[in-house]
Amino acid sequence: SRHYEGTKMLGMCRTSFLFSVYLIIYVMFLFSGAAVFSVLETPPERATKARVDGAIQKFLNDNPSVSDQALEELISEIVKASNRGVSAARNASGEPNWSFGQSLFFSSTVVTTIGYGHVTPLSRSGKIFCMLYAMVGIPLTLVLLSALVERLLIPTVWLLQWLNSRLGHLYQPFNIRLLHLFIIVLILIGLFLLTPAAVFATLEPEWDYLDSLYYCFISLTTIGLGDYIPGDSANQPYRPLYKIATTGYLFLGITFMMLTLAVFYDIPQLNLGLLFSSSDETNM
Amino acid sequence: SRHYEGTKMLGMCRTSFLFSVYLIIYVMFLFSGAAVFSVLETPPERATKARVDGAIQKFLNDNPSVSDQALEELISEIVKASNRGVSAARNASGEPNWSFGQSLFFSSTVVTTIGYGHVTPLSRSGKIFCMLYAMVGIPLTLVLLSALVERLLIPTVWLLQWLNSRLGHLYQPFNIRLLHLFIIVLILIGLFLLTPAAVFATLEPEWDYLDSLYYCFISLTTIGLGDYIPGDSANQPYRPLYKIATTGYLFLGITFMMLTLAVFYDIPQLNLGLLFSSSDETNM
Ligand SMILES: [K+]
Ligand SMILES: [K+]
Repeated sequence: SRHYEGTKMLGMCRTSFLFSVYLIIYVMFLFSGAAVFSVLETPPERATKARVDGAIQKFLNDNPSVSDQALEELISEIVKASNRGVSAARNASGEPNWSFGQSLFFSSTVVTTIGYGHVTPLSRSGKIFCMLYAMVGIPLTLVLLSALVERLLIPTVWLLQWLNSRLGHLYQPFNIRLLHLFIIVLILIGLFLLTPAAVFATLEPEWDYLDSLYYCFISLTTIGLGDYIPGDSANQPYRPLYKIATTGYLFLGITFMMLTLAVFYDIPQLNLGLLFSSSDETNM
Repeated sequence: SRHYEGTKMLGMCRTSFLFSVYLIIYVMFLFSGAAVFSVLETPPERATKARVDGAIQKFLNDNPSVSDQALEELISEIVKASNRGVSAARNASGEPNWSFGQSLFFSSTVVTTIGYGHVTPLSRSGKIFCMLYAMVGIPLTLVLLSALVERLLIPTVWLLQWLNSRLGHLYQPFNIRLLHLFIIVLILIGLFLLTPAAVFATLEPEWDYLDSLYYCFISLTTIGLGDYIPGDSANQPYRPLYKIATTGYLFLGITFMMLTLAVFYDIPQLNLGLLFSSSDETNM
């Protein structure tokens, strides 16, 4: 028993050591990401700042009667409205932010935790309702998506069994599982990233292919930066239909993303987390 | 065997029926959310729009020499810059968006999938790097947070065992589990929502308590709308330290949120998803 205790202590030390190493690598990963973003993005930020400052200066030069302070006050109002999701420009989409269709899109992005934030609740009651809605909606969505993933797992398992029956005598089970994961990832990329990106690049007047791919990726990972939103261009025909189709795409895409993750985590050799687990301690 | 097949078919019909009902309720949930948001948010949106339109009209009246078109062009530039995360106002925070500290905050919000989007990559290379960074960073973060949750589960299980030993002879196991979940939820709300909200409300000059609570809630659920960002007010002293402390809070808070969900899903009676599961089909 003392020997067992000793082995256990050693095991705990080992997982704690591995975990500390992982933590250090992780912090380094965050710092190096910050360095790269800072280097890549400082020049375009400066260019944008210079451009808008230049436009303001040119306006002041062209209109010498305008006082510096009056313009500054106006700019402050415009920026404040813009931060609250209201565009002061006349060529904006024309559709109100909180029409029924836009509100439906907002609700969907809250419960999926995408949260683009291109429009956000402004009233106190809107913020309170948003919290309550997310509190109920996120678990409901998780249940829905998990049920969908479970249904999709049936054909996914069939595929694995078929691969095993065809290739089982030639390759190791681990290699067949890798091939299986690779096929699922290919379907994810082809059907839920590259194809929709092509559709968005066609439909959105100002998006190139990279913008569209970036939108799809940032949405399906539920990061949802909100710098690109489909269907918000001025004079977009069929806007409501477009928004509903986009919502459907997002739900399906997130489901398939979850399916891919489930297949990935089901291959123990790829699951880094098992390195730090002391599962006999934590079973309830 | 035919009897077994029959029972199984009936079971599948039942889960499919329940799933369809769930789907209908879910769609109704989305629609009613949309209706409420639309009703609550249309008036403040109109007020904001009226306010900024009024400011523009007043400016044009005060400066009759300014041409409508010249001002419209300026406004368009200002709104465009604002949408790219660059404020044209002179009283903006003064800190560049992509300083090292701000970039670190951005990296953290990408890998946790919060994705506030108050600043976003503008360059093509920045967008490509953002996708690659998320592709590696999100799984790494999931592994880290899961390992932390597993460590936190140890004292959590102790608490449950202690409750069982004290109350086991008085109450049903299910009721003790509910009490246990209730205690964990209380800790989550007290330590990771109400207390940090009080801190933010004190530190941020323009946030009231509801704003702060809304920020904490929207962040820990990883929705991350990005309408409130701590440490971005003008002349914020100790900005880097403040941002780092906020990042630490977000990681810990999301971890505790995941712990609470783990405790919740471990109570089978509360796990709606089991209604639709046909688990014998889907084990790999
Ligand atoms: K977001
Ligand atoms: K998000």
